[in-house]
Amino acid sequence: MKKILLAVTKDNYPEVITPETEAGIRELGEVVKRDDLKEADDPQTAYVEAIRAARPEIVVTGWGSPTLTMEAYRASPDLAYMCHCAGTVRNYVDRDVLASGLLVSNWGRLPAPTVAEASLMMTLACLRKVSGYVRLLDDGGWGAGEFESASLFGRSVGLHGLGVIAQEFVRLLAPFDCDISAFSPHCPDEVFEELGVAREEDLANLYAANDVVSIHASKTPKNHHIVDADILAGMKDGAVLVNTARGAIIDTEALVEKLEEGTIWAALDVFEQEPLPADSPLRGMRNVLLLPHQAGPTPDWQPRMGRHALENLSRYVAGEDVTDVVTVQKYDLIT
Amino acid sequence: MKKILLAVTKDNYPEVITPETEAGIRELGEVVKRDDLKEADDPQTAYVEAIRAARPEIVVTGWGSPTLTMEAYRASPDLAYMCHCAGTVRNYVDRDVLASGLLVSNWGRLPAPTVAEASLMMTLACLRKVSGYVRLLDDGGWGAGEFESASLFGRSVGLHGLGVIAQEFVRLLAPFDCDISAFSPHCPDEVFEELGVAREEDLANLYAANDVVSIHASKTPKNHHIVDADILAGMKDGAVLVNTARGAIIDTEALVEKLEEGTIWAALDVFEQEPLPADSPLRGMRNVLLLPHQAGPTPDWQPRMGRHALENLSRYVAGEDVTDVVTVQKYDLIT
Repeated sequence: MKKILLAVTKDNYPEVITPETEAGIRELGEVVKRDDLKEADDPQTAYVEAIRAARPEIVVTGWGSPTLTMEAYRASPDLAYMCHCAGTVRNYVDRDVLASGLLVSNWGRLPAPTVAEASLMMTLACLRKVSGYVRLLDDGGWGAGEFESASLFGRSVGLHGLGVIAQEFVRLLAPFDCDISAFSPHCPDEVFEELGVAREEDLANLYAANDVVSIHASKTPKNHHIVDADILAGMKDGAVLVNTARGAIIDTEALVEKLEEGTIWAALDVFEQEPLPADSPLRGMRNVLLLPHQAGPTPDWQPRMGRHALENLSRYVAGEDVTDVVTVQKYDLIT
Repeated sequence: MKKILLAVTKDNYPEVITPETEAGIRELGEVVKRDDLKEADDPQTAYVEAIRAARPEIVVTGWGSPTLTMEAYRASPDLAYMCHCAGTVRNYVDRDVLASGLLVSNWGRLPAPTVAEASLMMTLACLRKVSGYVRLLDDGGWGAGEFESASLFGRSVGLHGLGVIAQEFVRLLAPFDCDISAFSPHCPDEVFEELGVAREEDLANLYAANDVVSIHASKTPKNHHIVDADILAGMKDGAVLVNTARGAIIDTEALVEKLEEGTIWAALDVFEQEPLPADSPLRGMRNVLLLPHQAGPTPDWQPRMGRHALENLSRYVAGEDVTDVVTVQKYDLIT
C-alpha cells in the first residue's frame, strides 16, 4: 500500500474533494488526511512534521496548502509525487524541489473550457452591444437599434495565442462557421491543421484583418504591452476585442484612447491593475463590458478538479504515466 | 421570360438586395424594378398601377412594401407568386388573396440561428452574472466572487417550445454537453429523437427541473401568461430564465415578484409592453439583463434574406417547389 498524505485544506471540501473523490483516493493507498495544516500556528512547520510522521510517497495538495520546501521534501525519504488539484504550483512547491526530481502534476488543461466559454460569451455580448443597451435600459430608455447588433455567424475571428484555452474556444466556435486565424509563432502546424485555423504570421495584421480579436497569449516579458497604440489603430470599425488572458498584454492607456473613439467594442475580464482602480476611465464606457476576473473556472467546476487529481493518482498507483506534469520549464513560465 | 415586379423599397438596398442578388433576379426574367412605391402620395394606388403596367407573374416584396390587396392581386391576371424577403407577411398580403390561391413564401427559418445565438449569449451572460458585475464595476467596485459565476457545461437546459429557433439553439448547445429537455406538445417525436432532446410532458416540471429555462413558445391565446407565479415559484435557486420569444408568455407582475426574491437570474429581450415603460420595476435589477428586442436577425444578416429570396425565385422559375410557403394556417398563427 502506497502512503498518501492528503494535505488539501478544509475549504476545498466538499467542493473540490467531494465524498466520492475522497473515497476514491482512500482506495488507492494508506491515506493520512491533514485538512488542518492551514489553521496551525505555523503551517510550514506543521507540514514538515506531518510529512515526517506520515512518510508519504504521495502528497495531494490544493488551494491553501503550505509550500513544499526542500525541508518538507526531505522529511519523507519516500516522497516521489505531488498531485496538486489546482493550477499554478508556484506557491505550493519550491523550484529547487521540482529541480531535484519530484514529480508534480496540476489540473493541466482542465479549466480551459470554462475560460473559452467566457470568451465566447464576451464575444457574443460585444457583437450584440450588451454594454450599451444595459446602461440605456437602466437609464429608463429603450433605444432599439441605437447600436448596430451583429451576429457571430460567418465572422472572421483572430486569436492572439493558440494555447489550450484558444483551442477550446475554436471548438465552441464550430457552430458559427467562422473564418478563424491565429498568431502563435511557437504553436506547431499540426495544431493549426487539426483545428482548421489559418496561421497569421503578423500580429498587427491579425488585429487589422478580423471582425473579432480574442486574446489568449501568456504573460511573458515579450508580451508586455505588445498590443499597443499602433496595433489598436489598425482594428476595423465595429471590431470586437476580448481579453480573458492577462491585462498587461494590452497597453491600457492606448486602449482607453482607442475605445474613446467609439469605433470598437471591447469585453475585458483582466486588467493591468486588479482590482481595477475605482477611477479607471474604462469604467462606464458604453462600448466596454467589464468583468472582475471571472473567466476562470467557475465554482461549479470544482468537483472536476478533484476528479482530475484522482485520475492522476490512479495512474501513478497503477504505474502508468501521470498527465499534466509540471516541468521546471513550465514552472518558470507560469504567470 | 417570366415577368417579375421587384417591389422592394429603397431602404432594403444594398443590404437585403445586394447588387449580386439583384443581378441574380434579373437573370431569371424580365424585371420591372419599382423601389419608389413607398414614396408615392398613395403607395397602395401606386402599387395597383405598377402591377397593372408590369403584368407580372411574380412580385418580390420586403420591409416597407405596400399591401397586396385583392384589387392589387387582380391587377395582373398572371400574378401567381409573391416572394417576400422578410418574415411576417400579414402587412404585405391580405388574407383573402392568400386564400384565393396566390403562392406566398417568406424567409422561413432563415433568422432562427441569430435568435438562437442571442439565447445562448443571454444564457451564458446570466450564468456569469454579467448584469450584476456590470453595475458593480460601473459603480466603482470590483467584487470578484460577489455573485457565484457558473458554467453551462453539463447543465440541464429546459426549452419551452421546440420550434425552429429552439432547434437551432440545441445545435449551438452541442459543445456544452448539456442535458436538454423540451415542452412542446405538438412537436413530433422524430424531432426530439433527431436532436437528442427528452420530451417533458409537464410545463411546471420543465421549469422546476432545469438549471436553465429558455422560452421559444409562440404567442397564442393559450400561451398568454402561461408562465405564472406558480410555475416561477417552482424554479431552482440559482436557475436562469431566458426569454427571446414574446413578453406576454410570462406574467410580468409574477416575474417581477420572483426576481425580487433574488434566487433566479433572468435575461429578457421581449416584454409585454414594448418599449418597456420607463418606470418598469425590471429596470436596474442586478439579477436581470435587459435588451430592447434585439434577438431577431441582426443587420449583418440582411444579405442572407435577399439570397434566400433569390433561391426561391430560382426554384419557382425552374418549376421546382418553393420552400417556406406561407399557408393560410401559418398566416393565421403569425405573431
